[in-house]
Amino acid sequence: MRPQEIIAKKRDGKSLSEAEIGIFIDGVCDGGWADYQITALVMAMFINGMNRREQTAITSAMLHSGTIMDLSDIDAPKADKHSTGGVGDKTSLIIAPIAAACGAAVPMVSGRGLGHTGGTLDKLESIPGYNVNLSFAKLKTVMKACGFGMIGQTKQIAPADKKLYALRDATATVPYIPLIVASIMSKKLAEGLDALVLDVKTGSGAFIQKFSESKKLAAELCATGKAFGVNTQALITDMSQPLGKYVGNAHEVYECLLILRGEGDALMQETLGLSIDLTANMLVQCKIDKTIENAKLRIENVLRSGEALERFRHNIELQGGDPMICDKPEKLLTKSLKEVPIIADSSGYLTEVDTFAVGRAVCDIGGGRVKAEDGVDHAVGYSCAKKIGDRMRKGDTLGVVYCRRQSQADLISEKLRNAYKIGKEIPKTTKLIKATV
Amino acid sequence: MRPQEIIAKKRDGKSLSEAEIGIFIDGVCDGGWADYQITALVMAMFINGMNRREQTAITSAMLHSGTIMDLSDIDAPKADKHSTGGVGDKTSLIIAPIAAACGAAVPMVSGRGLGHTGGTLDKLESIPGYNVNLSFAKLKTVMKACGFGMIGQTKQIAPADKKLYALRDATATVPYIPLIVASIMSKKLAEGLDALVLDVKTGSGAFIQKFSESKKLAAELCATGKAFGVNTQALITDMSQPLGKYVGNAHEVYECLLILRGEGDALMQETLGLSIDLTANMLVQCKIDKTIENAKLRIENVLRSGEALERFRHNIELQGGDPMICDKPEKLLTKSLKEVPIIADSSGYLTEVDTFAVGRAVCDIGGGRVKAEDGVDHAVGYSCAKKIGDRMRKGDTLGVVYCRRQSQADLISEKLRNAYKIGKEIPKTTKLIKATV
Repeated sequence: MRPQEIIAKKRDGKSLSEAEIGIFIDGVCDGGWADYQITALVMAMFINGMNRREQTAITSAMLHSGTIMDLSDIDAPKADKHSTGGVGDKTSLIIAPIAAACGAAVPMVSGRGLGHTGGTLDKLESIPGYNVNLSFAKLKTVMKACGFGMIGQTKQIAPADKKLYALRDATATVPYIPLIVASIMSKKLAEGLDALVLDVKTGSGAFIQKFSESKKLAAELCATGKAFGVNTQALITDMSQPLGKYVGNAHEVYECLLILRGEGDALMQETLGLSIDLTANMLVQCKIDKTIENAKLRIENVLRSGEALERFRHNIELQGGDPMICDKPEKLLTKSLKEVPIIADSSGYLTEVDTFAVGRAVCDIGGGRVKAEDGVDHAVGYSCAKKIGDRMRKGDTLGVVYCRRQSQADLISEKLRNAYKIGKEIPKTTKLIKATV
Repeated sequence: MRPQEIIAKKRDGKSLSEAEIGIFIDGVCDGGWADYQITALVMAMFINGMNRREQTAITSAMLHSGTIMDLSDIDAPKADKHSTGGVGDKTSLIIAPIAAACGAAVPMVSGRGLGHTGGTLDKLESIPGYNVNLSFAKLKTVMKACGFGMIGQTKQIAPADKKLYALRDATATVPYIPLIVASIMSKKLAEGLDALVLDVKTGSGAFIQKFSESKKLAAELCATGKAFGVNTQALITDMSQPLGKYVGNAHEVYECLLILRGEGDALMQETLGLSIDLTANMLVQCKIDKTIENAKLRIENVLRSGEALERFRHNIELQGGDPMICDKPEKLLTKSLKEVPIIADSSGYLTEVDTFAVGRAVCDIGGGRVKAEDGVDHAVGYSCAKKIGDRMRKGDTLGVVYCRRQSQADLISEKLRNAYKIGKEIPKTTKLIKATV
């Protein structure tokens, strides 16, 4: 079947068969379809729509464009958490060691930051020596030893997704739920999981900002996971302000270590709370615990006993990093950085944060990437001093920029100040976990 | 403005400004847009639609991606005819010399055959030595000497169209009226015309087979021509059977020469009639004649006097061809060809012809191209013996295949026989000219 025939079918609003979608994804991988044919079909999919059967078929085809990890020789239930991406969203680094300490096996394949959001791989690489480029075989060895491993996408994992995503990014076809679902799930299903918990972000710092759309995405992700026999649950969580205290790679790892050490301050409780909730759902989904309450008790135990921290220390050793940072987290932070406060210019209540702008500001001073091939400065960052609902006085510190040069602070200070809205009335409080799907 | 922003606008169903369409076509020409971005936008245009303002803007941008011929030093009114393509459609070779003999200047830029249709350039190249690859400057010299010239598309003429058409062909986005209009008119407007007559084919051998769609295309072509100050008229003509007698390059030129010599047989009267009608409209549109009746009288004069044939002879000389064929048209035909009749297997009336299948059959034995880069065998062809409405007896000859090997006839004979429907009732007669727009 020629590409033109399949393209014409979707162009005319018809649905594609599993076989036709298979031909398409084969063509993406083996070059049988030219890039310009791929993007024409993707645009037709975007505008004319795909039903759930097509969504499952494209996920399956993309999944099988690569290898599915065989973890059958690991006895523990396999579970993972995936976030749709946010600002200051560092829970993976807390969840993986906790879940491992609780008896799950976590084969976490993560991505890098792009645009206003950070990525787990960049955060991990702020740990001196930490290597995220492990093969499947090496990942398994690490998992067997400490219960979890954290790596980047390899060529074995859903190679069709990598090519397709780059083309979608260049042709304004990223924000379409069935293709987002296929992109996320083809990679997560390659981990050979028993259970998956999804953290679907919503609000000003999320890729999908509208709650109704986030809910739709969550439902489709869960339906697709279940179609492949994976116990899948989604939490829709608030991204209307940065999560916890820090934004920026090394600073976020620092926050995680303080939390694992039981030394987290008041601003970090949000990060801890969300991490516990997500992990508890993982433990229930993979049947280690029957109820969320039991799971939370188990989690509190491994945190209090230091077992979760020890798992992280062991993992850092196994992946080539310097475990000393577990004892002295402050070693992660670069001493010579400038600290430039962002000052409130009026009094009232903090009512709204343009979280996208905060993420973008940290990106602008080198903490993230504008293009996929950009490098990242792990040292720079931002700490949040105030949260939505806090009472503010003119002159109060909203947050602090950590940068290498004054010119960097000058570049983003006004943008950061403008990202905060201060009003006269106490805003409605929003729950961190807005829905469970 | 980044390609993604323009693509997203059309993706969301908004209309594009003239400036945005200009950026797009600039990007097509200078490589600023990747092919996969071009096809994504074209698919969005196809599905979400373009209004007439956008249609005019893209025609203008494509026209100005190249050069417009400056024919200001030729006194005669400049006129041309363009056909949307059919089977056995050879009128250009008759119209150009007649119109020139009647006082028009005809700068005819034509294409090659593709798929089931023939192309004027291929037909001309069956004349030994005839050169269609002339520069604008050389074309003008030829026009000044004999009143018309016939060349292929040069790099100067709407280069954006060439690239865009190839991408549309590979992505199932050809059959969309605003893009068809832009493709046709950007090339025709580059001829610097005063008047243009369009032969919009409709029926089983046309690219657009439905009459209502043909009518819509005709209206849009005329509106666009007029928007650029060119007197434009469209005739919607029947392509429910091959035009006239012959299909195939050399055979079609042979038919034209017999007609110009006044020796056309009964089957060729259709070709002559349509040629006269189209030319008469050209003469009226470019104000050589006030009425169609006057124009037809003028045309009959130049045919009867032999002036039209002399113009063709002179043109052949000027473009490097052998003018002897004007005296001995039969020299065009290859003697050693096999002649294989297609025989009717029932009696009744010829009610329907699958004209696409007839065109395709000639293509299949080498008379046309499947891909643009294929070569063409000018010698092979097909002659029609019966027309819709003719009374048939079982065993009558429907037509004759002219081919080099028996195996070629074997390949297409059944397809050709199946292309004819013979029924018991006299079919409704259809007029050759179905509407004037």
